[in-house]
Amino acid sequence: MYLVSMILGIDIGGTSAKFGLVQYDGTITETKRYQTADWVNGDGFMEGLLEAIADFLSTYPNIKGIGLGWPGLLSADRQEVLFLPNIPSVANMPVMRMLEEAFPGILCRMENDAKCAAMGEYYFGKEKRMANFLLVVMGTGVGSGAIINHKLFIGGSGNGTEIGHMLTHTGKTLEEQSGLAQITKRAKEIILEDPFRNSSLHTLAALDPKLIQEHAEAGDAAALEVYREVGSLLGEVLVNVVRVLDIHTVLLGGGVSAALHLMKPEIMKQIHTHLPEYYTRNFDIRAASLYNDAGLLGAAGLIME
Amino acid sequence: MYLVSMILGIDIGGTSAKFGLVQYDGTITETKRYQTADWVNGDGFMEGLLEAIADFLSTYPNIKGIGLGWPGLLSADRQEVLFLPNIPSVANMPVMRMLEEAFPGILCRMENDAKCAAMGEYYFGKEKRMANFLLVVMGTGVGSGAIINHKLFIGGSGNGTEIGHMLTHTGKTLEEQSGLAQITKRAKEIILEDPFRNSSLHTLAALDPKLIQEHAEAGDAAALEVYREVGSLLGEVLVNVVRVLDIHTVLLGGGVSAALHLMKPEIMKQIHTHLPEYYTRNFDIRAASLYNDAGLLGAAGLIME
Repeated sequence: MYLVSMILGIDIGGTSAKFGLVQYDGTITETKRYQTADWVNGDGFMEGLLEAIADFLSTYPNIKGIGLGWPGLLSADRQEVLFLPNIPSVANMPVMRMLEEAFPGILCRMENDAKCAAMGEYYFGKEKRMANFLLVVMGTGVGSGAIINHKLFIGGSGNGTEIGHMLTHTGKTLEEQSGLAQITKRAKEIILEDPFRNSSLHTLAALDPKLIQEHAEAGDAAALEVYREVGSLLGEVLVNVVRVLDIHTVLLGGGVSAALHLMKPEIMKQIHTHLPEYYTRNFDIRAASLYNDAGLLGAAGLIME
Repeated sequence: MYLVSMILGIDIGGTSAKFGLVQYDGTITETKRYQTADWVNGDGFMEGLLEAIADFLSTYPNIKGIGLGWPGLLSADRQEVLFLPNIPSVANMPVMRMLEEAFPGILCRMENDAKCAAMGEYYFGKEKRMANFLLVVMGTGVGSGAIINHKLFIGGSGNGTEIGHMLTHTGKTLEEQSGLAQITKRAKEIILEDPFRNSSLHTLAALDPKLIQEHAEAGDAAALEVYREVGSLLGEVLVNVVRVLDIHTVLLGGGVSAALHLMKPEIMKQIHTHLPEYYTRNFDIRAASLYNDAGLLGAAGLIME
């Protein structure tokens, strides 16, 4: 029996780690999710991770490489994790050396999770191998990665394109004002500002982004206002990113991207108000295509470079 | 007589073009300035430029390469000038082809002027060959160029790091609120807001940035306020640039940089307020070292790559 060699992609999140067997065409043939709290509360995060990888390798001996995405800042040489808010114990451990010692002969690479997602779109997305684009992932937080001239852009010290942390005119960052929780919070604020305002959101026992989006799509002015605000803030940040990176194609991923059509008019208004024709004539923002698998696929993509 | 081969560096400005013979160690042995209006009003800008270069080459036959800096946007392949506000007639002409046809056998390269200045600091500045830095030139306008991992960063389509055009919290760009003319304008506004305010600027018949700086250094509160404002705006923009490019060293050039010491406390306040320790622990902004020759030297530097 001929076994095609495969890649183990690992997408490490705040509370869980998703493992996936990825073929070279981007097909994911097997996935498994681990609760990272089990590792942290057991022998330690790295011990748990290494054990889970060893398990996978014994089940799938045709794995050729391992790619990992981390939700934090990495050293410029991609040997260590410098800052990992949700799993602080891993910071400054020699992660890459531990992997290479545990799994000799297997190619290991690691990258920031949002940058992995950009790699995923680059290799496996609907529009493959676009020379230049920015991926913005708006979900719980706001992550971002850029491909410039067919290469992942990491910046001078390795942790660039943190656009969720860019300041807007309000003095707050984009992430502090967008993301799924902020959309719910803002909708509540808007209807509380005027309890007599005619809004269908008043009829709901509890608000969540999916419901707010549905009411916006049904034409509710308060719900629409939430998305107009987020769109305007994202547009403002994109104006500044475009000035720095000179990228004219933006892919939007993450949970908030389902409402891109509600935000796009305000995004484009900012772009056209503040950028000259050189940048705007071919500017577009559209939905990313890989949804929740982007990070996993991008981690696998690290091995394909 | 042994003639060391040399480079012709050309720094094209809004109203004049500066030619310089540059040796490989960065010594400028001969300079000449042309008024570009003479070319535009004569046979045309490119004809005037080509003729002036031909003149230089006949006087200095040991010129090995020609590097040009343009005050505008270039095509990604550096063959054409796309947008040149002060000399619009050059836009979309096949500049590089015209140079190569006119001067066969001589290596020609061109780049944006602020990006040239960054190259100049990289090759010939006080701190040579720094791996990562951002140069900000605050003079009449605000230009910028970045070196990332020892290479000039031009962005996806070739015209990135236009940080003078980034938006601040006021809704205006950095360039609209800083630069030499804006410093004079802002000082006038501040003393007009309160004509009875005790400011030594009231005693001046006319304001200019040099005088305003002198009065700020002598402790005048109104003059100091101007530089605090500009410093705060620059700091705000740098926070966002650092998030995108992950560069921790900034060199400030141009006329306004003489007042860096007056602006630096506010710049650093923005940096430390809005960036975590990862970025701030080795962040510094200091004066660029080449003054008015940075662009010319950087243009010559294009030939050294």
